[in-house]
Amino acid sequence: MSASALPQSLIDGLGQAVGLQNVVVDGQQLEVISRTCIPFRELPSAVVYPTSTEDVQKVMRLAQAHDVPVWPVSTGKNWGYGEKTAAYPGGITLVLERMNKILQVDETLGFAVIEPGVTYEQLNDHLKRVGSRLWADCAGSTKAASVVGNALEKGRGLTPYADHFGSLCGLNVVLSDGSLLETGGGPTGNNHTRHTYRWGVGPYLDGLFAQSNLGIVVSAGVWLMPAPEEFDFAAFEYTAAPDQFGAFIDDLRELIYRGALRAFPHVSNDYAMTCILSQYPKELLTPGRRSLSDEAMATWRKRNDVAEWTFGCGLYGSPEEVSYQRQSLKRVLGKYGLVRFVGKVVKTGWVGKLWLLLVRVANFMMGKSERLMQSMVPAINLYRGIPTDFFVRQVYVKNDAAKPDTDIDGPRDGRGLVWIGPMVPFTSKDVNGAIARAKEIFKKHDFDFFVEVMPISPRSVILLFGIFYDKASATESAAATAWHADLQEAMWALGYPPYRAATMTMPQTLDLNPAGKAVLASLKQALDPNNLIAPGRYGTPTRSSTTRSS
Amino acid sequence: MSASALPQSLIDGLGQAVGLQNVVVDGQQLEVISRTCIPFRELPSAVVYPTSTEDVQKVMRLAQAHDVPVWPVSTGKNWGYGEKTAAYPGGITLVLERMNKILQVDETLGFAVIEPGVTYEQLNDHLKRVGSRLWADCAGSTKAASVVGNALEKGRGLTPYADHFGSLCGLNVVLSDGSLLETGGGPTGNNHTRHTYRWGVGPYLDGLFAQSNLGIVVSAGVWLMPAPEEFDFAAFEYTAAPDQFGAFIDDLRELIYRGALRAFPHVSNDYAMTCILSQYPKELLTPGRRSLSDEAMATWRKRNDVAEWTFGCGLYGSPEEVSYQRQSLKRVLGKYGLVRFVGKVVKTGWVGKLWLLLVRVANFMMGKSERLMQSMVPAINLYRGIPTDFFVRQVYVKNDAAKPDTDIDGPRDGRGLVWIGPMVPFTSKDVNGAIARAKEIFKKHDFDFFVEVMPISPRSVILLFGIFYDKASATESAAATAWHADLQEAMWALGYPPYRAATMTMPQTLDLNPAGKAVLASLKQALDPNNLIAPGRYGTPTRSSTTRSS
Repeated sequence: MSASALPQSLIDGLGQAVGLQNVVVDGQQLEVISRTCIPFRELPSAVVYPTSTEDVQKVMRLAQAHDVPVWPVSTGKNWGYGEKTAAYPGGITLVLERMNKILQVDETLGFAVIEPGVTYEQLNDHLKRVGSRLWADCAGSTKAASVVGNALEKGRGLTPYADHFGSLCGLNVVLSDGSLLETGGGPTGNNHTRHTYRWGVGPYLDGLFAQSNLGIVVSAGVWLMPAPEEFDFAAFEYTAAPDQFGAFIDDLRELIYRGALRAFPHVSNDYAMTCILSQYPKELLTPGRRSLSDEAMATWRKRNDVAEWTFGCGLYGSPEEVSYQRQSLKRVLGKYGLVRFVGKVVKTGWVGKLWLLLVRVANFMMGKSERLMQSMVPAINLYRGIPTDFFVRQVYVKNDAAKPDTDIDGPRDGRGLVWIGPMVPFTSKDVNGAIARAKEIFKKHDFDFFVEVMPISPRSVILLFGIFYDKASATESAAATAWHADLQEAMWALGYPPYRAATMTMPQTLDLNPAGKAVLASLKQALDPNNLIAPGRYGTPTRSSTTRSS
Repeated sequence: MSASALPQSLIDGLGQAVGLQNVVVDGQQLEVISRTCIPFRELPSAVVYPTSTEDVQKVMRLAQAHDVPVWPVSTGKNWGYGEKTAAYPGGITLVLERMNKILQVDETLGFAVIEPGVTYEQLNDHLKRVGSRLWADCAGSTKAASVVGNALEKGRGLTPYADHFGSLCGLNVVLSDGSLLETGGGPTGNNHTRHTYRWGVGPYLDGLFAQSNLGIVVSAGVWLMPAPEEFDFAAFEYTAAPDQFGAFIDDLRELIYRGALRAFPHVSNDYAMTCILSQYPKELLTPGRRSLSDEAMATWRKRNDVAEWTFGCGLYGSPEEVSYQRQSLKRVLGKYGLVRFVGKVVKTGWVGKLWLLLVRVANFMMGKSERLMQSMVPAINLYRGIPTDFFVRQVYVKNDAAKPDTDIDGPRDGRGLVWIGPMVPFTSKDVNGAIARAKEIFKKHDFDFFVEVMPISPRSVILLFGIFYDKASATESAAATAWHADLQEAMWALGYPPYRAATMTMPQTLDLNPAGKAVLASLKQALDPNNLIAPGRYGTPTRSSTTRSS
């Protein structure tokens, strides 16, 4: 389906509904808007930017009347998962980024109510501007990512409020017929606990709208943490023998299970870390290969003074509590590497400046690079809920030039990136086993091995695997697609489902759970009988852009 | 519909499906099984006790074939909410108490997988017997209550794992057509994170089966906490002026929000506490009244040395952490009353015995009764996940004789009890306002004012209101019904929905959220088109026992 495939009456209707300035049907513009980092992209027939709940309702009524599918995204900053592309060609892509009102901040009870266009940067700036005592968690994603969108995709942050979907409470949802659902049980419009109590009365419905196409979330309550009395930051570098990594993982789990760590460190391997600090060393590649040999990787790592495994982690509480957390961390993890506490570099005024200087000097004396040092302040800030584009710059790692410092836009700039994050039980056996298997798949497809071990609770970790590839090369794009499919299949076989799906594989999500897939199809039929909202998303029945699937 | 209304072919089929010993159709037996504490009860036509998932599937297929509704309960120990009665007469009541297998305990990752018949006592005994490092939270309900049943009703415990539904992870569910759903996304039968990661992939479906009739949960993962290195117990008695109660509530919230309190104290008013310690002082009643005057209540309270507000709370962590929690509690709450730390009385060996003696002596010197002392060990144990019938004995408070120590069974013994627990934002304004309004309703219906303020997070409290009434008296039963309806209406009007419903008001649950009610009706139609599982539960469409509602 091309842009011209939408009937003029629908295009006119959309313009009347949301304003002409909020409707794009120009082919060139559609091409730019729908660009992706993943090796998959479909062109929509129109992109619509509603600015209110009523706009979304009107668009759904028009879509019903014209039987045209609508693919909603919040801001579409999920680089490497699918950005703004639909799973099918044509139809309307509904970008909610102009619905960006912060509707409420409750200082006492610690929550905000926001629209899906509100970004991490906007929410954090707002809290700072009004002198709030509250911190919002943010993802290690772009500053312009949607708080609600990331949460609905079950994205993760780093603070004690890292469970983004688990921090949502009370949704307003536009259903496929244009009606508005207020979750939480009621009384509608007068439910004083809809943003303070998650489960509501009767069946819990919010969960239906996570990784979902059963409705369009147009506002949500988001729980916020209190700024702690004391904050510190632990920087860890693994120096033990490789065969101690399993014991390290098990000890890390116990620290979290016992509550000694309240936040969620992302343990990055050498490649993941070096991609942040440096540009890809093409000169070290064996000719004809696209991944570094073990020796080349070791060379690159050493050039950048990067350990085999690195993490940072925020510590939160009263001075006494933070002090105790420091002791616990040092006692338990000290045997695996170097633990340093550098939270003071983000203190305001002369204390912070002095600390920054001291840490720089210490780093220099330990042979650490200036670039490693530069990454420290944004890393620490992430654990204080302050978003940054510093880390997503890694999407430019294979540029010949250095990474840009501003105007960072991976999909627009044609950067190739794909993620896949299987969920794995938090045991050394599972983590080591999954990593070993994944390494084989990386090797098979000749990509450099990138992993972050992301604990999300005492019971599970996400193993975030990713590749940077040349999107301009059809060969590399095909390899990226094959790598993704192979890795997904290998992880399924081991019993580790992905925590979220890239758009190109979304329709297959529940193929290995036929009963679940059938239930979801029934629910979809009940709430969206014409299969108009994002058909195919997360295992629901697909449809072509023009005809319904059965 | 009477027992005879079930066709003989169905009764025969049930006997063949689950065994004759697991089917009850005898009228006298049905009368005993279906007894309630609430002022409402319907007689079923049959009670069936499946012993396996396959049994439940067979029963649902028979119910489909015969178009007979099935009301599932786990063990039906939810005294004061509805016990085993359906919302309608006739049909099959499915009691899952003989499905009581503990299928798995994972010591490393801290979870169990259990069937709905597993009781608090059984799970706790099992963990102790195998020398587990894990503690299961339990409700302050009966020892024989179902772990899964309470969780599915969104019941609450007291430890850091008090959010019972929030501790469920990964369900097996029999649907109305007899098929089996494994939640969590798959791969079915080989999903290694289905009990370690809550949200799964795709829409989160577990929530659909909370306070629900969309399926019958036949097994569930339950997260368990690690036994802490150190445990202590804070006993608090409020002694400040009544006008300080609001400030006390706000300070309590901040303690929880900051993480200084990890568990969830239930703050009981004088009447609630005295009902545990003593028998109702009928001699203090003004003739013709059924509630005590303020003066009489004060007399009874003083007789039993009970403060106006009382709570206990567990402290958990390393010795350093528990010590810091003690300091915080004393510093913040010390200005409102007496905080004592008595956790050592439950230590094993001579330490515990010595402490018990010391506390007894201290109590005696402070004028506290021996009965108050007797309540301390079970209270402390509740915070260690050890269930007790000590507190539910209050259902016998209006007996002439003392409360029984064994063979405690409120519904069988005809004790009248109804609960209603509105969910209220955790602010002094909301808590004080809701309590003041509730007092008016209690006064109107001439019942003694019973409230427990149950924080469930930094953001919400349940105000648990209850009455003990004479079930043999038609007048009192009618008053109980009217009190319940009035209080529910008053709390709805203030914007405080109940956290769960008593069976007699279940069909009205979502009346004040028409969009939510319509969505739930669609989901019900999708998953149970013949409306066979527990029609009317939590706001779904009702049906009479013989004909379907539209």
